Amino acid sequence: MRDVLILGASGSIGEQSLDIIKENKNSFNLTGISVGKNSDCLISTLREFPSIKYAYLIDDEVRQLLCNAFPNVIFFAGKNGLKKLINKCSFDLCVDALVGFVGMAPAIQVLKKNKILCLANKEALVSGGTIINKLLSKGKGKLYPIDSEHVALAKCLSKVNLNDVKCLHITASGGALRNMKIEDLKNATPEDALKHPNWSMGKKITIDCATMMNKGFEIIEAYYLFHFPLEQISVKMHDESLIHSYIELKDGTLIYDYGKPDMHNPIKYAMFEGLIDFKVGSTIDLSSLTDCHFHDYDPKRYPLTELAKQCLKQGASKMIALNAANEVAVNRFLNKDIKYLDINKIVQTVVEKQRIIKAPSLMEINYIDKKARKEANKL
Amino acid sequence: MRDVLILGASGSIGEQSLDIIKENKNSFNLTGISVGKNSDCLISTLREFPSIKYAYLIDDEVRQLLCNAFPNVIFFAGKNGLKKLINKCSFDLCVDALVGFVGMAPAIQVLKKNKILCLANKEALVSGGTIINKLLSKGKGKLYPIDSEHVALAKCLSKVNLNDVKCLHITASGGALRNMKIEDLKNATPEDALKHPNWSMGKKITIDCATMMNKGFEIIEAYYLFHFPLEQISVKMHDESLIHSYIELKDGTLIYDYGKPDMHNPIKYAMFEGLIDFKVGSTIDLSSLTDCHFHDYDPKRYPLTELAKQCLKQGASKMIALNAANEVAVNRFLNKDIKYLDINKIVQTVVEKQRIIKAPSLMEINYIDKKARKEANKL
Repeated sequence: MRDVLILGASGSIGEQSLDIIKENKNSFNLTGISVGKNSDCLISTLREFPSIKYAYLIDDEVRQLLCNAFPNVIFFAGKNGLKKLINKCSFDLCVDALVGFVGMAPAIQVLKKNKILCLANKEALVSGGTIINKLLSKGKGKLYPIDSEHVALAKCLSKVNLNDVKCLHITASGGALRNMKIEDLKNATPEDALKHPNWSMGKKITIDCATMMNKGFEIIEAYYLFHFPLEQISVKMHDESLIHSYIELKDGTLIYDYGKPDMHNPIKYAMFEGLIDFKVGSTIDLSSLTDCHFHDYDPKRYPLTELAKQCLKQGASKMIALNAANEVAVNRFLNKDIKYLDINKIVQTVVEKQRIIKAPSLMEINYIDKKARKEANKL
Repeated sequence: MRDVLILGASGSIGEQSLDIIKENKNSFNLTGISVGKNSDCLISTLREFPSIKYAYLIDDEVRQLLCNAFPNVIFFAGKNGLKKLINKCSFDLCVDALVGFVGMAPAIQVLKKNKILCLANKEALVSGGTIINKLLSKGKGKLYPIDSEHVALAKCLSKVNLNDVKCLHITASGGALRNMKIEDLKNATPEDALKHPNWSMGKKITIDCATMMNKGFEIIEAYYLFHFPLEQISVKMHDESLIHSYIELKDGTLIYDYGKPDMHNPIKYAMFEGLIDFKVGSTIDLSSLTDCHFHDYDPKRYPLTELAKQCLKQGASKMIALNAANEVAVNRFLNKDIKYLDINKIVQTVVEKQRIIKAPSLMEINYIDKKARKEANKL
């Protein structure tokens, strides 16, 4: 039985993590959760899980109301509330399903406490990969990715001798705008870019799929998670999203598993620490796997994937700037403050200006992130 | 260093086996060969390989001419000549690349001599699978298939725990007539049926590809080679012929290797007894593997594949009749004596009439084969 803390419980991954806990009451005991502004979700979750002892939400006024309604629960709110939640709450395993850079500090905090981190927040590794890997190699904390691509890679890698591996291939759907003509992209609206062909996810990540910034992040994640050099990590377009990444051996063998997109299984993989048999997608009959298309991506359509590779080569500070600028730009695009292709331009400009620091401290990371956000907001 | 005997040296597999020997002179020493009527091939091979001590060809008159030209070689010809060749020739490893039922008796003879059998002749296992498996389990002889499908399966199976395997999938191109309308098949000519979309092979096997009798035979081969029940062996249409069969694990993983159709590697696999690293097809860049299509086959278009499964369920005598009738029918079709769809009819009728004998002796096998041929010739 593991005591569990879920950060970002009201998001898509958070909700599905709650499903896993409901289905596996003998394995997991929910002791703490955080939400952002979604107090409805918080209330219904508190009702459903009387085991919750600690909770966080942003708004302090709502917090005060809830204190009276749930006298057995200790609530945190405001700027340092999340940090306090992680410090006070007793847990063995934390699902970090926060969106954006805000998920990095909690991830580091969890590993510093030598706990199990189930990480859905890609940005933590993109901005804090060097620190996280140091914590993993020195401490007793453990990290399991919640990302169908990386779970698929982990599963395939578990079956082979790592010396036999030639390449990790991360599959990419190409996002909502994959069939839009390049010359029309300049007029793409948030509504267009949010219509993902295969996955139903949060807004930020759906835009990251459209720009394939997401795949750039996933290359960086794979680099930190599996310790393969960049040259052995590739991105392959795969329209059907039935194969959630695959590995290629030196002897020409390919290994993958297949299934319909469904995040429950990757979450399960992480929460059960890779110890159970699992499929990455939801089960489908093999006869549904009729057409598989793979091709290389067009770097003109998806310049941010290329840029992420460059940042990885150049050093940590570039990746931090990449992530920060992207977060700001996506947000501005969703608010119709900039056009779709401005996302690429803003991110490219901010990254270019960023000077190289190979192994920044946590304080430096925060500083680089803030500065990059300012730049991205100005452009 | 292995002494090698090649049966059927003038055919497609035979010639490629000679290539392997040329390329690997430290591993193989050619001591004997057989051809059918192709004395040109025999002469040029004898010139190229002075190591050959024994040779066979059908025509006794040509044999007498050759005796004078190659005084250091002992020649056999005629009905029992092949048997004598195998008995007299000193060899460690025999490549059986004969076409049709005629390849079965030599295969059995090689295993009885406790030698290594590299078997390209599918019909040997189809008609003599029960006897061959008995010889393998009792004697010291070894069997390696030369068939891209089975080599691919062997390679994939070597990487996993056999208990984890859910299904062996044999891929099928569908042959030369795969895109012809079913209602037009009745008018298909030998010229049509010989235009294989992906492979360049002998005439008999190319027609077997068009009818997918070939895949029926391969199911039977897989059954005898890998000891999986029929329910765990499937045939999947795969237009591109870049994936040469694959395995499915119970946990949803698929394992395969990819490459351009090329029989050199499967022959190499067999001749090196599975001990070297190898790809099944010839090397291609993974980026060439862009479109993979898989689908179930239409049993109306390919009734002989279904029939082969039934025969395997019912017993050995049915498979012998299946093979014999098919050999006759394909020959008659190539001679324009019958129409394309008559192949199916003849084979079905002969198999239906055949009574069931589960484990026939070698004498019984020969008798059933002869009787089935007579029937097939009459229809």
